[in-house]
Amino acid sequence: MKPSPIIFVSLGPGNPELMTLGCYHQLQQADVIVCPSTANKEGKFTSKAAEIITAVGIETEKLYKFHVPMQRKREAALAAYKECADEIAAMHKKGLKITVAVEGDISIYASTQTIAEYLEDAGLTVEMTPGIPSFIAAAAAMAHPLVMGTGSLIVTTDIEQIRHNIERGLQHGSSIVCMKIKSYENEIKEYLSAPGSYECFYYEFLGMGDKEFTTSDKSEIMARSFPYFSSMIIYNPYQSEHNR
Amino acid sequence: MKPSPIIFVSLGPGNPELMTLGCYHQLQQADVIVCPSTANKEGKFTSKAAEIITAVGIETEKLYKFHVPMQRKREAALAAYKECADEIAAMHKKGLKITVAVEGDISIYASTQTIAEYLEDAGLTVEMTPGIPSFIAAAAAMAHPLVMGTGSLIVTTDIEQIRHNIERGLQHGSSIVCMKIKSYENEIKEYLSAPGSYECFYYEFLGMGDKEFTTSDKSEIMARSFPYFSSMIIYNPYQSEHNR
Repeated sequence: MKPSPIIFVSLGPGNPELMTLGCYHQLQQADVIVCPSTANKEGKFTSKAAEIITAVGIETEKLYKFHVPMQRKREAALAAYKECADEIAAMHKKGLKITVAVEGDISIYASTQTIAEYLEDAGLTVEMTPGIPSFIAAAAAMAHPLVMGTGSLIVTTDIEQIRHNIERGLQHGSSIVCMKIKSYENEIKEYLSAPGSYECFYYEFLGMGDKEFTTSDKSEIMARSFPYFSSMIIYNPYQSEHNR
Repeated sequence: MKPSPIIFVSLGPGNPELMTLGCYHQLQQADVIVCPSTANKEGKFTSKAAEIITAVGIETEKLYKFHVPMQRKREAALAAYKECADEIAAMHKKGLKITVAVEGDISIYASTQTIAEYLEDAGLTVEMTPGIPSFIAAAAAMAHPLVMGTGSLIVTTDIEQIRHNIERGLQHGSSIVCMKIKSYENEIKEYLSAPGSYECFYYEFLGMGDKEFTTSDKSEIMARSFPYFSSMIIYNPYQSEHNR
């Protein structure tokens, strides 16, 4: 018999309703669900993944939490991922059906990819299930298409890439999703204060209940201090034929 | 009492398991589900949206199909969207709870956006729910991240945009999702035959059961005649720290 794969399930951006039916079924069938947890400012470990999973009624007994150290200490994070992969491999050897829970989508800036690599290095098979990326949820919240007609979509964490594309001129129906804007807050605000800049949609803690904040008002964005979980969409509105 | 909004639900790329819980609940609660249908080569109207919806057990009695003419006849399509919007407005007036079903995600090249515009013109409120875009499902199928670290993701239908980004040099952990490649099949194949091109993942009819075809083999892609529902991901593999 072929050994069962380790399944990485993508949970979506936070709202349990944004989980796919397939993800939900995988969670139901799992013996163990591996969840990343991180320390908050007070040093208390919390797991957004675990919150999403328990919100849809999955038994908490299945959850296996592993602690991811602060992002700045990259080596410590790698060691934690390696340790987690070793633990998964040991549980897999016992015949347990394991899924690894990932916030957002596994293919979009997901650091848990490192666990998948360690597992593959150890000769195990991994499978990925897709989820809603936060920028797709944001686009629905702003009720405006991200990309239409002959437009393009760019998703980036890089202010140079954003600048380059703005300088080239964003086509109608194109968007730039600016991720991790906290790290280039000043540069983005400089862009916003320039005359003739495109439309914007700013969001914090999307799909995370009361903490969620969204605005399209540039002066509101300017006055905001960007938290870690903030992003912005710069877009050139699509001109539909019937509105021309 | 505030009138209820018209809800646009995104169904995902085809596999019913990729529908979100929220979309499923909206479909359950709807009185009427508006589904686009298109004519196949034999002139028979089929609706992929209707197939996805009935696969999760929603009553077919709720479905209201509208026919979208061939894409080339843009004016005929606009007239069909307008007629559909008028029909929705009339049903809404009767107090019916209406959802409009959209394949893929409503924010990514979704021509049904036109219906939303007509409804807004008529003074109705529309709400969007997000879904899995086909390129996110494709990334999970290729089991490789679309974007990692300092990389960027570009989604485009434009060969010039693809060329420009390849010429600039794709960073590690970056990808270009090339949509609607049928329209620039020769140019893409020219790129593939050039020495030193990046990794590729090609897919047809993703999530559509037996019709689905995927490959990472460049010679297989070269030999293929691209159908309408085909796309390609060009990527520069992410070099993880532990594998360096």
